[in-house]
Amino acid sequence: MLIDSLYPKSFASDNHAGVHPAILSAISIANEGDAPAYGGDSCTAIFERHIKDEFGDHAEGFAVLNGAGANMVGLALMLGRYDAIICADTAHIATHEAGAAERMLGVKLITVPTKDGKLTPQDISSRLGGLGNPHESQPRVVSISQVTELGTCYSPSEIAALAETAHEAGLYLHVDGARLANAAAFLDCSLREITTDVGVDVFSFGGTKNGALAAEAVVVLETSLARGVPFLRRQSLQLASKMRFISTQLSALLTDELWRTNAAHANAMARRLAEGVAALPGVEITYPVESNAVFVSLPEKATASLQERYLFHVWDERTGVVRWMTAFDTSPAQVDDFIEDIERHLNA
Amino acid sequence: MLIDSLYPKSFASDNHAGVHPAILSAISIANEGDAPAYGGDSCTAIFERHIKDEFGDHAEGFAVLNGAGANMVGLALMLGRYDAIICADTAHIATHEAGAAERMLGVKLITVPTKDGKLTPQDISSRLGGLGNPHESQPRVVSISQVTELGTCYSPSEIAALAETAHEAGLYLHVDGARLANAAAFLDCSLREITTDVGVDVFSFGGTKNGALAAEAVVVLETSLARGVPFLRRQSLQLASKMRFISTQLSALLTDELWRTNAAHANAMARRLAEGVAALPGVEITYPVESNAVFVSLPEKATASLQERYLFHVWDERTGVVRWMTAFDTSPAQVDDFIEDIERHLNA
Amino acid sequence: MLIDSLYPKSFASDNHAGVHPAILSAISIANEGDAPAYGGDSCTAIFERHIKDEFGDHAEGFAVLNGAGANMVGLALMLGRYDAIICADTAHIATHEAGAAERMLGVKLITVPTKDGKLTPQDISSRLGGLGNPHESQPRVVSISQVTELGTCYSPSEIAALAETAHEAGLYLHVDGARLANAAAFLDCSLREITTDVGVDVFSFGGTKNGALAAEAVVVLETSLARGVPFLRRQSLQLASKMRFISTQLSALLTDELWRTNAAHANAMARRLAEGVAALPGVEITYPVESNAVFVSLPEKATASLQERYLFHVWDERTGVVRWMTAFDTSPAQVDDFIEDIERHLNA
Amino acid sequence: MLIDSLYPKSFASDNHAGVHPAILSAISIANEGDAPAYGGDSCTAIFERHIKDEFGDHAEGFAVLNGAGANMVGLALMLGRYDAIICADTAHIATHEAGAAERMLGVKLITVPTKDGKLTPQDISSRLGGLGNPHESQPRVVSISQVTELGTCYSPSEIAALAETAHEAGLYLHVDGARLANAAAFLDCSLREITTDVGVDVFSFGGTKNGALAAEAVVVLETSLARGVPFLRRQSLQLASKMRFISTQLSALLTDELWRTNAAHANAMARRLAEGVAALPGVEITYPVESNAVFVSLPEKATASLQERYLFHVWDERTGVVRWMTAFDTSPAQVDDFIEDIERHLNA
Repeated sequence: MLIDSLYPKSFASDNHAGVHPAILSAISIANEGDAPAYGGDSCTAIFERHIKDEFGDHAEGFAVLNGAGANMVGLALMLGRYDAIICADTAHIATHEAGAAERMLGVKLITVPTKDGKLTPQDISSRLGGLGNPHESQPRVVSISQVTELGTCYSPSEIAALAETAHEAGLYLHVDGARLANAAAFLDCSLREITTDVGVDVFSFGGTKNGALAAEAVVVLETSLARGVPFLRRQSLQLASKMRFISTQLSALLTDELWRTNAAHANAMARRLAEGVAALPGVEITYPVESNAVFVSLPEKATASLQERYLFHVWDERTGVVRWMTAFDTSPAQVDDFIEDIERHLNA
Repeated sequence: MLIDSLYPKSFASDNHAGVHPAILSAISIANEGDAPAYGGDSCTAIFERHIKDEFGDHAEGFAVLNGAGANMVGLALMLGRYDAIICADTAHIATHEAGAAERMLGVKLITVPTKDGKLTPQDISSRLGGLGNPHESQPRVVSISQVTELGTCYSPSEIAALAETAHEAGLYLHVDGARLANAAAFLDCSLREITTDVGVDVFSFGGTKNGALAAEAVVVLETSLARGVPFLRRQSLQLASKMRFISTQLSALLTDELWRTNAAHANAMARRLAEGVAALPGVEITYPVESNAVFVSLPEKATASLQERYLFHVWDERTGVVRWMTAFDTSPAQVDDFIEDIERHLNA
Repeated sequence: MLIDSLYPKSFASDNHAGVHPAILSAISIANEGDAPAYGGDSCTAIFERHIKDEFGDHAEGFAVLNGAGANMVGLALMLGRYDAIICADTAHIATHEAGAAERMLGVKLITVPTKDGKLTPQDISSRLGGLGNPHESQPRVVSISQVTELGTCYSPSEIAALAETAHEAGLYLHVDGARLANAAAFLDCSLREITTDVGVDVFSFGGTKNGALAAEAVVVLETSLARGVPFLRRQSLQLASKMRFISTQLSALLTDELWRTNAAHANAMARRLAEGVAALPGVEITYPVESNAVFVSLPEKATASLQERYLFHVWDERTGVVRWMTAFDTSPAQVDDFIEDIERHLNA
Repeated sequence: MLIDSLYPKSFASDNHAGVHPAILSAISIANEGDAPAYGGDSCTAIFERHIKDEFGDHAEGFAVLNGAGANMVGLALMLGRYDAIICADTAHIATHEAGAAERMLGVKLITVPTKDGKLTPQDISSRLGGLGNPHESQPRVVSISQVTELGTCYSPSEIAALAETAHEAGLYLHVDGARLANAAAFLDCSLREITTDVGVDVFSFGGTKNGALAAEAVVVLETSLARGVPFLRRQSLQLASKMRFISTQLSALLTDELWRTNAAHANAMARRLAEGVAALPGVEITYPVESNAVFVSLPEKATASLQERYLFHVWDERTGVVRWMTAFDTSPAQVDDFIEDIERHLNA
C-alpha cells in the first residue's frame, strides 16, 4: 500500500484521483500484440470515429498527452507570428502553464479581468482597438475555459454570442475544455451543444481530470485548420509513440457516456459539499457551484488547521478564499466526513 | 481482439510492441486511492530514489512523457539564446522531431556526417571555429545518441573522450538515451558506466521503447543545471498531472534490472535475425548489430513483397537499406518465421 | 522641398523632427575613407569611451539601430526561458513593440496598472508570489521607462528604491531610456545619477527622439551581463555593418552635453505649451508635465478640428485625452501659434 | 581625420566603404522640417513608387535597417511553425546571422553543399522527401543568394528553373539580394529580369554594401504575402522611426541607376584585381569573378604578411583561400597598388 493512500480523500484537485477501472481495463485490452506507432493503430481509428459521432462528421480529433499540450497544439493552429489571444486573466493558459503560450506560441495574451472567470462579448469588442496597427499584437483568437478556472459554466447561448463577436471581427473561438465534461453534465446537454452547435472553432476535451491516466483530445471543427495538427503535435512534444494506449482511454470515456457519469458524479459531490457548508458560520461560497469545484472564503485559522489533515489549495492568500474539488471517485461519505471536519475546525 | 494483432510480429519499431506485464501491473498497483499531482506523490519519491541508486547520489531524475520531450527538456537546461548543438546528421533531434529543437530551443544544430552514427572528438574540435565570433551560433552542447540511430553503441571510453573534448572547450555533453538500456545490455556494463562515470552532463533514459506505456526520464548529473528542470518540464508540456503513473513505470524498469532483461532480450533477437540473414544472397548487413536494430541492404523487389506482409521501414530509398527492429517481446519463433519469409521472398 | 514640410510643426512625436545639424555634420565627418565594419572602427572606440566617461569605467555601451531593438537586446541579457518581466501596463515593450517581447524573448510580461506610468516597490513585491512555483513564469526583470510613456519621471531615490526591492528578490532592474535625456534635463541631474548611481543593471539610452537620425545605445552596468551583447545584438538584427555612422551620432550627443541642450529645450517647449493651455476652458492637463509631452483632455470636437491642421495623437479614445509632444527643434513661435489655434478651436 | 583613414584601401568588405556622396546629400535634403514617423512621409512614398517602377506595379517595397533584417522579415512572411528553408550551406542566413533564422523564425535550415554557392533544381527536389511526414520539418522556402557568398551569379534562366521547381512542389523562392545590384551589373540586365520576370516571390534589395549608410529593402512580388510586412517589420526590430532617412537612401540608389553605376564600378575593380593577380605564381583564383569579390588561394606566408598592411578576410583556414572585395569607391590606383604589394609579398 502506498503511503499516499493513508491520507483521507483529497479535495485539492481532480488530478489527485486515480484512474477509472473501465479506463484501466481498456488499457489492458489494448495491450495485445503489436500495433503501429504514432496513431496508425486501430485503437486510434476507433477514437477518431468516436469524435465524429460525438461532434459531427467534420470534426477531427487528435489525442495528446496533457491539458497544457492540448491547449498549445490547438492554439498554435490559429496563431501567426504577430498575433494575440484574448482570454480571462484567470485562464489556465495565462496563469499556470509556465509561460508556454509566450515561449512556444510566441504570442501576447491580452488578459481580461472578470467577475466569475467568464468573458463577455463586450470584453472582446473592447480589446480590438489595435487591429491593423503594426505597432500592436493583433488579436486573433478568443480563448475561454469551459468549465472556467472559477468553476463556472458558459451556457450554450453565451458561447454562441462570443463566437459571433469573434467571427465578425475575424477572430477564432477556442475552448480550453479540460473540464468540458463537467460543463455538459451541469448544463444537462450534449458535448456537441456547447461546441459544434455554437460556433467553436477548436477545443480541447479533457480526459485526465475525469478519470483517465493521461489523455486529452484536440478537436478541430474549423476544418481548414486540421491539416497542421499532426506536425504541431509532433513538434510540441505531444505525440505518443504507443498511441493506442492514449486513444483507448478517450474511447473509453466516450463509450456509453462514461464522461458524463464521471463528471455528473463529481459535480454532485461538489454540490453536496457546498450545501453542507453553506450555512456554517464564517463560510461564504464565493462563486456559483456549477461543476466539481467549490470556492469558499474561510477563516484563516480554520484553513490552517484543516490543511493539517486535508489536501486542498488556498486560492487567494489575500482574501482567504480556498478551492475544494471533487472527483469521479469522491464518495458521499468522504464528503460528509469532510463537512463534519470543517464544522469542527470552524468551532475550534 | 484488435485488428492490429492479426498481423505477424512487427519489425518496424520497438514502439510497436505493447507494455511489459510488470509495468502494467505497477500501474494498477499505483492506482490506489489519491495521490498529490505533479510529482508530490510517493511513487515519484521512489522513482527519484531509484535514479540516485543507479546513477549516484548527486543524480536527479525527472519523469517526462516521451523521448522528444526528454531531449528538449534536457537540452534546454544547457542552451542560451545564441547557442548551437553539435550532433550527428542522423541524430533524432535533427531528423525526426519535426523541428522542435529549432522552434522550442531556438538553436542551431550543427550536423556532422558520420559513417556509423557516432561522433568523434575530432568531429567536435573541428566545429569550434566560430567560438567567440558574434556572427555565428556558439557551440554549447554536444549531443550524442546511445544507442545511435544506426544501432551502434559508444564504448565507455569513447564517451569519456567526447566528454573531455567537450568540457575542455566549455561545452556540455548530452546523451539521447532513448535506448540507453540496449547499449548497457550490449556493452555488458551498468547504466552508470556509460553516463555518470564517463563525464555525461545530462541524459535521457528511455522507458517507452523498452516496455513502458509512456515514460522517459531526464537525468541531470551536472548538478548546477538541475534547478531549471521543473520549470522547463512544465513549460515544455512534459509534466504529467497524475505523475504517479509515469514514475511507477520507470521504477518498474529500474527494479531488479528489468530494463536489462528487456533490452538484452531485444538485442539477442536482433542478433539472431542478423545471423539468420547474413549469409542470404542479396542481403548485406550495413552497420554492426550492437543493439536491437538490424540494418540491411535488400533487393528492392524483395523489400516490396516482404512489406506486403510485414511492417518495417525503408531507411534509405536511394540505397535500398531497410531497418528491422526487435523488442522486449519478440520471440525466437517470430524471428525464425521472419527469416524464413525473407529467404522465400529473396528467392521469389 | 518635400511635401511634408508644408505642414505646420508636428506635435505628434519627437520622431517627427529631423536630425540635429551637429549630428548630421558628425555623420559627414565620419564618412572619410574606409573603416572596419561591425564596430571595429575608431568612431565606435570613441563612442565606447564616451559611455565610460558618462556612466563609469565599468559601463559598457553598444550602439544599436532603434529603441525597440535596444530594449530587446538589453532585456535578453537577463532573461531565461521561463522568466517574466514586471512592467507598467503602459510600458512601450508591452504596448507598442508588436509583441516583440513575447516572440523574440519568449517571456511573459506581468503588466501593472499605474496612475502615472510609474511602478512602485509595492507593485513589484506584490507580483512575486509565483517565485519558485514551476507552474508560473518566474519574475526576473523589472523594467521601467524613464521618461515614462505618460511623460512623468522617476526621481533618483524612486529608482534606487525599485532597484533595492528588485535586487533583494533576485531580480534585475532595466530602464527603457528612449527619453533618458529628457528625464535628466527635467531632474537637473547627470545621466549617471539616474542609472549607475541608483542600482540600474541595464538600460537603453535613446538618441533618435533627441535629434539623432537612428541611434540608440544599450548600456550594461552589471558587468557579468555584458559578454552576451555582441551575440544578441547580431542575432536580434541590431548590428549595423557601417557602425561608424551609428556610433558617431551617439558621440555627438554625448559631446558637450548636446543631449541635455536638446532635451532641455524640448522640455521647455512642452512646459510653455502646457502653461499656455492650462487655463483654457475645457482643457485639463492630465499628467504632470515633466518632460517633452503634454497630456490633456480636450473636447472631442476641438480635437477633431485641430487634427485637420495639426499632427498629434489621441491617447485614449474613451476619455478624449490627447498627447502633444515637442522636440529639440520646436520653436517658441510654433508653440505660441499652436496655443492660439487651440484656443480658436475651443471657441469655435 | 579619423585614424581608420590612415590605412590603405580595405579589401575586406564592401561594408568598409563609406557613404556615396549622392546618398549623403539625399539624407541632408530629407532633413527639412517635420515628417510623419514610421513611413507615413513623402520620402517613403517616393521610395515605394521607385520600387513599383523598377519591379512592376504589383511589387511592394518596405525599407528596413540591415541585411539580416531584410532576410528575416522577408522569410518570416512565408514560413509557418513547422517549416524549413532549403539553402546553400554557404548561405549568409545559415552561417553569419548568429542563428537568427533558428531563433527568430524558429525554423530548420536544410543546408546543401554546393561547388560554387549556387543551388540547382536537383538540390531542391532531392530534399523534398519529408514533405507530408509529421516527424520532419516541412520544406517551404528555397532561399538563394544573388550574388552568392562565393561571388558567383545565377543567370535569369537558372533562377527561373529554381522557381519552377520550387513552385511545383508548393515552395516559395526567396532571394537574399544584399548584392543584387552587383548581379544585375554583371549580367548586364535590369533588376527586374532577375526577380519579377523569373518567378521570385520575395527578395531583399541591398543598399548598404552599395554605397548607402544603412538601408535595405524587402520587396514582395507574391502579393498575397505583403499584408504581413508592416507587423513583422515592427516586431523584428526593423522599423525606423525617422523612416524618411532610410527611404531616401534607397530612392537615391534607384534614381538614374546609381545602383548600377556603383555596382558596375565595384565589379570592374574586382575584375581588374583578378586579372592583375591571375598570372602570379602561387595565386589561384578559386571561383569565377562575377561580382565585386575575388577568391584566391594564396601561400599562407604571403597572406600573413599582406594582412599586416591590408584588411581582408581569410575565407577558409584549411585551404588558405582568402577573399578580396572591392567597393563603389575603390579606385584603379588602389587596386594597382594592392596588386603590386601582393606581388612583392609573394616574392618575399
